[in-house]
Amino acid sequence: MSAAIDSGLGAPHIGTLPGGPLGTIADVPGVTVGHCTLDQGALQTGVTVVRPHRGDPFVDKVPAAASVINGFGKSIGLVQVEELGTLETPIALTNTFGVASAAQAQIRAAIRANPQIGREWSTVNPLVFECNDGYLNDIQALAVTEQHFNDAFDSASTQVASGSVGAGRGMSCFDLKGGIGNASRVVEVAGRGYTVGALVLANFGRLPMLTIDGTPLGRLLAERARAAQAACETAATNTTTKPEQGSIIMIVATDAPLDARQLKRLSLRAAAGLARTGSVYGHGSGDIALAFSTAYTVPHAADFVTLPPLVADARLDPLFRACADSVEQAIVDALWSAVSVTGRDGHRRLSLHDGVPDLAQLLRPAR
Amino acid sequence: MSAAIDSGLGAPHIGTLPGGPLGTIADVPGVTVGHCTLDQGALQTGVTVVRPHRGDPFVDKVPAAASVINGFGKSIGLVQVEELGTLETPIALTNTFGVASAAQAQIRAAIRANPQIGREWSTVNPLVFECNDGYLNDIQALAVTEQHFNDAFDSASTQVASGSVGAGRGMSCFDLKGGIGNASRVVEVAGRGYTVGALVLANFGRLPMLTIDGTPLGRLLAERARAAQAACETAATNTTTKPEQGSIIMIVATDAPLDARQLKRLSLRAAAGLARTGSVYGHGSGDIALAFSTAYTVPHAADFVTLPPLVADARLDPLFRACADSVEQAIVDALWSAVSVTGRDGHRRLSLHDGVPDLAQLLRPAR
Amino acid sequence: MSAAIDSGLGAPHIGTLPGGPLGTIADVPGVTVGHCTLDQGALQTGVTVVRPHRGDPFVDKVPAAASVINGFGKSIGLVQVEELGTLETPIALTNTFGVASAAQAQIRAAIRANPQIGREWSTVNPLVFECNDGYLNDIQALAVTEQHFNDAFDSASTQVASGSVGAGRGMSCFDLKGGIGNASRVVEVAGRGYTVGALVLANFGRLPMLTIDGTPLGRLLAERARAAQAACETAATNTTTKPEQGSIIMIVATDAPLDARQLKRLSLRAAAGLARTGSVYGHGSGDIALAFSTAYTVPHAADFVTLPPLVADARLDPLFRACADSVEQAIVDALWSAVSVTGRDGHRRLSLHDGVPDLAQLLRPAR
Amino acid sequence: MSAAIDSGLGAPHIGTLPGGPLGTIADVPGVTVGHCTLDQGALQTGVTVVRPHRGDPFVDKVPAAASVINGFGKSIGLVQVEELGTLETPIALTNTFGVASAAQAQIRAAIRANPQIGREWSTVNPLVFECNDGYLNDIQALAVTEQHFNDAFDSASTQVASGSVGAGRGMSCFDLKGGIGNASRVVEVAGRGYTVGALVLANFGRLPMLTIDGTPLGRLLAERARAAQAACETAATNTTTKPEQGSIIMIVATDAPLDARQLKRLSLRAAAGLARTGSVYGHGSGDIALAFSTAYTVPHAADFVTLPPLVADARLDPLFRACADSVEQAIVDALWSAVSVTGRDGHRRLSLHDGVPDLAQLLRPAR
Repeated sequence: MSAAIDSGLGAPHIGTLPGGPLGTIADVPGVTVGHCTLDQGALQTGVTVVRPHRGDPFVDKVPAAASVINGFGKSIGLVQVEELGTLETPIALTNTFGVASAAQAQIRAAIRANPQIGREWSTVNPLVFECNDGYLNDIQALAVTEQHFNDAFDSASTQVASGSVGAGRGMSCFDLKGGIGNASRVVEVAGRGYTVGALVLANFGRLPMLTIDGTPLGRLLAERARAAQAACETAATNTTTKPEQGSIIMIVATDAPLDARQLKRLSLRAAAGLARTGSVYGHGSGDIALAFSTAYTVPHAADFVTLPPLVADARLDPLFRACADSVEQAIVDALWSAVSVTGRDGHRRLSLHDGVPDLAQLLRPAR
Repeated sequence: MSAAIDSGLGAPHIGTLPGGPLGTIADVPGVTVGHCTLDQGALQTGVTVVRPHRGDPFVDKVPAAASVINGFGKSIGLVQVEELGTLETPIALTNTFGVASAAQAQIRAAIRANPQIGREWSTVNPLVFECNDGYLNDIQALAVTEQHFNDAFDSASTQVASGSVGAGRGMSCFDLKGGIGNASRVVEVAGRGYTVGALVLANFGRLPMLTIDGTPLGRLLAERARAAQAACETAATNTTTKPEQGSIIMIVATDAPLDARQLKRLSLRAAAGLARTGSVYGHGSGDIALAFSTAYTVPHAADFVTLPPLVADARLDPLFRACADSVEQAIVDALWSAVSVTGRDGHRRLSLHDGVPDLAQLLRPAR
Repeated sequence: MSAAIDSGLGAPHIGTLPGGPLGTIADVPGVTVGHCTLDQGALQTGVTVVRPHRGDPFVDKVPAAASVINGFGKSIGLVQVEELGTLETPIALTNTFGVASAAQAQIRAAIRANPQIGREWSTVNPLVFECNDGYLNDIQALAVTEQHFNDAFDSASTQVASGSVGAGRGMSCFDLKGGIGNASRVVEVAGRGYTVGALVLANFGRLPMLTIDGTPLGRLLAERARAAQAACETAATNTTTKPEQGSIIMIVATDAPLDARQLKRLSLRAAAGLARTGSVYGHGSGDIALAFSTAYTVPHAADFVTLPPLVADARLDPLFRACADSVEQAIVDALWSAVSVTGRDGHRRLSLHDGVPDLAQLLRPAR
Repeated sequence: MSAAIDSGLGAPHIGTLPGGPLGTIADVPGVTVGHCTLDQGALQTGVTVVRPHRGDPFVDKVPAAASVINGFGKSIGLVQVEELGTLETPIALTNTFGVASAAQAQIRAAIRANPQIGREWSTVNPLVFECNDGYLNDIQALAVTEQHFNDAFDSASTQVASGSVGAGRGMSCFDLKGGIGNASRVVEVAGRGYTVGALVLANFGRLPMLTIDGTPLGRLLAERARAAQAACETAATNTTTKPEQGSIIMIVATDAPLDARQLKRLSLRAAAGLARTGSVYGHGSGDIALAFSTAYTVPHAADFVTLPPLVADARLDPLFRACADSVEQAIVDALWSAVSVTGRDGHRRLSLHDGVPDLAQLLRPAR
């Protein structure tokens, strides 16, 4: 959520917890994000890479866990994360048919950095998430290449763009333009301050479900759209009967010291933030949340692993709330930041601002 | 949701799906509910029994599955439901320390009906859920007896009371009086009509989180309460810092033909309805949803099991939405229907109506 | 595994890892076990209590996790163990219909020790496992009382009996007399010595499946029994066609510093030891393993939890092997230690020694 | 399991259930298998494809479920199988770094067959399993291409080779040559005959653990190897201390009518067969079993799904036993069928027959 947007028509601030200075997942120290965006006619897609820290995650693994809220998804890497509770590559996001290229690129990068992989050492577990951007993007072209992953990786920084960028380029959300969203929240746990950051790849939902900060915006828009279809071309598709084919990936980072079991608990709270935007985790929506902690790493080669003191489970509630609020805010940010995009076969998704010119008026009553 | 209340200040209708004629879980044909309420000074507790059909569920088992959203709970019976995908006793709800008595009563009832149990036949899996009503109820008294289960069972009917009754007698919700809530929704799936009904035992949440149909009521109440504690005695407890010790049990019934895997999917959508009331599935809240189908039964003794044609997964979205809406509505119903209760050590929970006399005004802007 | 039996016909030593000095779960420092045995005609049952340490596990919780290998079981307490990764009561084992009494006794004991439970503090999660001893025991009598749990608890010591004692009194295993079994293994992990101990409640299997240390003893016995039923009365029941109605509970303790995720991994290796005795985790057999670590405790009231350095996952293999070998050995110990028992309706289970007088000869070829 | 080998030194028959006529997974009607083998110096790898039926599995999906016994693995596709209980592509097996190519090939094949994929229809979920063949194969070369998948697919038939072929080309098992193994069992369930077939990609275990039909062969071999290393070059590596880096994939097919929940139960019984060969599911071994039924299919486009009468859970035991026995037999078959292979850097794995010339003598005592 950029300050620039806030100074104009700011997105509503979800909940009562304060955000971090950047308003992105990069408020969690050490986290960086890079995008590679393909914007070439029918190819409207890309790759986004989240680096949990600036080192080599194969050597210094990152405690992590995921919640599969609805498993209509084609990610790679979750089986091992579930078993071992760690990440060992950056997190890649791309379109559904770009998973193989991104995984291949991750493998090559890991081998370059650690030539022992697949020799003296075990192999590496590439972690790649996806959503289906086939409405705007010619997904059958399998346009994502290993180089796109590398470009996204190389561009990673703490300046994190949201909207129609990276993996978010071709995504749709509530029949509007979706994409990458960011948010963060700062909380106090037992006298110490921690940050929770979220980055989402938002590609889910039909318009009538859209809820922003408690306002049933989608219901209002759908009613209006039914009355005058020209006012909002997006809604001209029969939005009430066609099922979702979207998904959402929710990446949650925190500097709070949590172990994998606790991170799994944390990741599930993304489902609460997601629900508050109107989702009921539709059948065709691959809704997956992954949480990681930057408070420590797990060395690849070690006999024993030393952890910092962990937050007691009974003190997790502020972090749970921060997760739900960050995810809801990040979804709003994706809608707020996205620009309208035209893609394959003339398919077009209007941004929230373009599709709902009187957005400010509509949101006012609920605040 | 009693007609009496509806004729006065009706609870807001959640979402756009129509409800069933009764507005309770009993709108699903065959489902009945009975309550046994203990209202004796420091003993404010009880038992609620949901009968999935009027027969013997040990002989004719009921397809079922559960989602443990937050496992801070002491239920009995879920391990076998997960493995076999069926219920074989009625569903009992009671306070945390009443689980043993209710389970014992279920075992005795099953043996009475089927003397082969534990002899020629295998044993029986009693299914009992619980919430902690220790704020109002002297839970240490272990007051629930087998007879209370039997009384609740014997009183089961399609006339289902909500509020401070049965297992809901001593429950708290958002620092107000909680308890039993009911709702139902009717949907069309591939040209056929199905009903989804929900019964909740609502005992979760702190006041600042309370959200009713999108209105952040809890935030408003908490602000007001801070300004003038006398206006709402419940909020005088330090509601922002004390963690939840509550829970919610969400029982979802449907007459749609679903198998156990699909019922597990359905049950998870209760998490969406729950989130929309303000919950982030707090650490100390045992949040469990169980869904069952009345479309067929699984015979205890059979070589093969014949199922009706099942709803295709790609057609589940209307049922998912009905589940989320029913659960949200049932939570609102629990708050709406409950009456104020005074229990052990003078502890008192005000009902929503008593605690928020100007409820209608507060809710109006959001509608 | 009692010294008396070892001095005569010793049970084969499973695998190549050395056992601990006691050959029981009590080789893990701090672990104690108590039995209460009911031996009164048709009542052949009991309670066994495993105390993970000598303190109060509610105040100092024990890291733990379970694997439900086959969930045809009626235990109580596993939902919370899965969520929080800790035990907070001793572990009780009893017959299927004794779970409620044992759970009730656990609740009362926890309240006695901590009067804040259910008041200022949250409630307590009693952990009780069960097997169905209905062949020998009149399980419909619901004979287990809270006092039996208390007696078992009070008798807990490091002198751990195996065989037809405690919860094992009425259990059957491979159509022979089963019951309580114990074993332990000592391993080296990264230069440090750790102990893995197992206590099983063995009540599973049909005779033709029985395998001891690789010898298909059951097949030999079944063939012989078919030839001459008088030689082995147990086998006179139609052992090949009647399905299992048994179960096995496998409690695994270790002093190795592991977290809950790792303990879940460890607990699953019990399935390997179980399989080597001939089990295929039959439909009707509730096969559950629970593992806990005594290397540290998790305080009930704390803001942060400090853990010792944990064994790296890549160093777990010796512990995995020790778990599998201990569980297999403990099952053999249960058979080896049990005495023949006659119970309800004249039902009788011969011990392995009584049923197979020439056991030493049969086992010899395989060694 | 080739007849040629059987006519010489036949592999021991595991258990007492009869096998099918082919002794492979293709004994389950409709199942075919194809291999593409790379045998080019340092490249010793390949692809194996299991086709569950001869049609298009995207159009006619196959009921399926998996058990992740140890999740140290990099497969793709399991998240959706878990959620929806169906396969929609053939099953591909390859080396760890070939997963991306095989997945890409699956996607392209599905699009060719169904141009609506990623357009009007949802995307497709490629299912690819892997083991790490890096000891013999130059896995860093990423030599597997999409064409290799296509070649394997095109060659699928009911004549299924075992041993050092397809994905099994570079695999090691118990420090000997591993690879592809097959087996089947025929059982009677409630008066009807059903077949269970298994195909494994065996790449796990250290030599001292090897157990064949109850004989601790590995222990004997390791002892001998220590005495005279020349006798078995494979064992000259320090087999007792180096941890496993292997894995096993176990594909289980049946024509019994089971739903996804039951297939998950069935798949877990592969863990029993695996354990009986000596595995304790080592930390570094990705041990995954997937079971599917050919008794019916689930149409891609349908409102309702009609199932045949399903086997009752209480009648599953014969199928469970067949699964365990088939998997154990298939592992023995992989060892029995494999030929010695030399790969990268002169690494060599001896076949069981080459490494243990007196195998027949060693196995004799146990039979």
